[in-house]
Amino acid sequence: MTETNALPSDHPVNDGRTASSPLLAAYRGERVHRQPVWFMRQAGRSLPEYRELRKDVGMLESCVRPELAAEITLQPVRRHGVDAAILFSDIVVPLKLAGIDVDIVAGVGPVVGKPVRTAADVAALPELDPAALAPIAAAAAICVAELGSTPLIGFAGAPFTLASYLVEGGPSREHLRTKALMYAEPETWDALASWVARATALFLRAQALAGASAVQLFDSWAGGLSLANYTRYAAPHSAAVLAAVADLPIPRVHFGVGTGELLPAMRDAGATVVGVDHRIGLDVANDRLAGTVPLQGNIDPALLFAGQDVLHAHTLDILARGTQAPGHVLNLGHGVPPDTDPNVLTRLVEFVHQQRV
Amino acid sequence: MTETNALPSDHPVNDGRTASSPLLAAYRGERVHRQPVWFMRQAGRSLPEYRELRKDVGMLESCVRPELAAEITLQPVRRHGVDAAILFSDIVVPLKLAGIDVDIVAGVGPVVGKPVRTAADVAALPELDPAALAPIAAAAAICVAELGSTPLIGFAGAPFTLASYLVEGGPSREHLRTKALMYAEPETWDALASWVARATALFLRAQALAGASAVQLFDSWAGGLSLANYTRYAAPHSAAVLAAVADLPIPRVHFGVGTGELLPAMRDAGATVVGVDHRIGLDVANDRLAGTVPLQGNIDPALLFAGQDVLHAHTLDILARGTQAPGHVLNLGHGVPPDTDPNVLTRLVEFVHQQRV
Repeated sequence: MTETNALPSDHPVNDGRTASSPLLAAYRGERVHRQPVWFMRQAGRSLPEYRELRKDVGMLESCVRPELAAEITLQPVRRHGVDAAILFSDIVVPLKLAGIDVDIVAGVGPVVGKPVRTAADVAALPELDPAALAPIAAAAAICVAELGSTPLIGFAGAPFTLASYLVEGGPSREHLRTKALMYAEPETWDALASWVARATALFLRAQALAGASAVQLFDSWAGGLSLANYTRYAAPHSAAVLAAVADLPIPRVHFGVGTGELLPAMRDAGATVVGVDHRIGLDVANDRLAGTVPLQGNIDPALLFAGQDVLHAHTLDILARGTQAPGHVLNLGHGVPPDTDPNVLTRLVEFVHQQRV
Repeated sequence: MTETNALPSDHPVNDGRTASSPLLAAYRGERVHRQPVWFMRQAGRSLPEYRELRKDVGMLESCVRPELAAEITLQPVRRHGVDAAILFSDIVVPLKLAGIDVDIVAGVGPVVGKPVRTAADVAALPELDPAALAPIAAAAAICVAELGSTPLIGFAGAPFTLASYLVEGGPSREHLRTKALMYAEPETWDALASWVARATALFLRAQALAGASAVQLFDSWAGGLSLANYTRYAAPHSAAVLAAVADLPIPRVHFGVGTGELLPAMRDAGATVVGVDHRIGLDVANDRLAGTVPLQGNIDPALLFAGQDVLHAHTLDILARGTQAPGHVLNLGHGVPPDTDPNVLTRLVEFVHQQRV
């Protein structure tokens, strides 16, 4: 707690501007006066004003231009009236800033020039210089200044997911090389995941110190692991990332896809809020977590294409299940699909905000 | 039972040639004298002798040339000494034989020329003429004659997975259009899945009547559904397929990826054996099924790349967990990856067969 206490009381971490927002109240498990809602991947690809801004700018380039990243972050807040902004970035940004040859290829995802597969490859990885994170902190600071009482959520990818991109060299359905490395050379795996955790922890902490009111760790591919393997190979490294912001007075959300079997382990990695995908009900998730933490989720993104009546009816069902948890922030069970009609999201936010809480 | 009883006693369905095989004993939950093992996708892409045969023949073309399909089916039995053959085919074959414009594109998967997305699209689907299945039955019959006391497993894709290819037009990670159709137009969805179920049931029954000693229904994408949605939208159609062979005295295996939450529902769809992927232990799976059915699985395919010592040690752990189920057939938790070294599989079969049971 030393460092937080050392921050001045008017520092964004301590100034309390977002403390009474519905998002933070729900993340703390307190009563809300309005149901909070935001959408994973709300900033970016689904918005025409985003596509306009990105016309001549590469994905990772846009993440390190503070004004541009901040503008993209703010677009969905203005358009939809959501209860939080989440910093526009990409989980590979800290790897890129450390000097890794990685790019986001449209229609593919992250592609790594030289995959990392041996102990020597891992030993050669460059440490991230915290100074390289200045554009990220600057983007977050611009957002915080603009957002006023609306919280900014800081954002990072979990070591398992990020390391899987480094090992496979790109997106992969089965993560065969990644898991083979875990199984065959656990020390090499741990060294790689520790390197990722150090870089990602700096990335997340930079956002928090710039004034993010909460953080979310995304472990997109964790659902490919058994509970035993998650606990052994992934959770300790995610815990290292979350520990890097645990001295700050901000909620820590932990989310993965297909992780219904992993929820208690994801909480135990140091999360104060657990994100749930659409495969299990929030009531079931809350039972598995024994009511210990607030939940976030979990509208099936496919419902965004099913018509307003069906979407809103399902949303009411999710809100009802969410009341069983100590707190509930409505979200999707996965990111906003690229071809989502943004008006569907805007109307959904209006509908949610009209509900009595 | 009428039709079975009407078959002559020397018909392949009734001749008992494979009745005392380790595979069928384990599928029936009886004591085995040797641990049975086979591999999903053992026939095909991982074998050089397969790639040689397929050099100038398209994937779906190879499935409807009886001698070729039979030869490909038999290759892994000869090479690895596995305890079962599984008919070389593709889950889209019955759709193709019904007249759907579908092809298997290398590196992509099934691609459908004209996606099926409306009630009118569904109404226009052509019914499969059972006579079109003659090459499939012929391939199965050749295999059965060659295999002697080694069982042939018949093969089909489940309606949810197949319908998702028809709706999306190809492989998809999230099945957004498929699930949107389910949610928005359940009658159209049910009509589509019923059409698939009719075609697939004929395909599976043709293999059984040609002498397959067991059948397996693959619902590759079922793990993308919640239990509630699986039960409502997928299970009834899978049940219709399994019911089409329920009058025959052969085990019915039901498998999907990421289906740890769905196992009892998959059993209740009419399976006598449940396949388990690598995400949960066989002991956990058996607990969820309350010890009611034999299990099949569940080596993580990534272990095939982790070195023999690690692979064999994990295999022993899986065999130990499998002893808790009423019967256990060793398999992978998913298909053999294309770049698997076939010698790893051969040595694994030898190792498994050396174990005391």
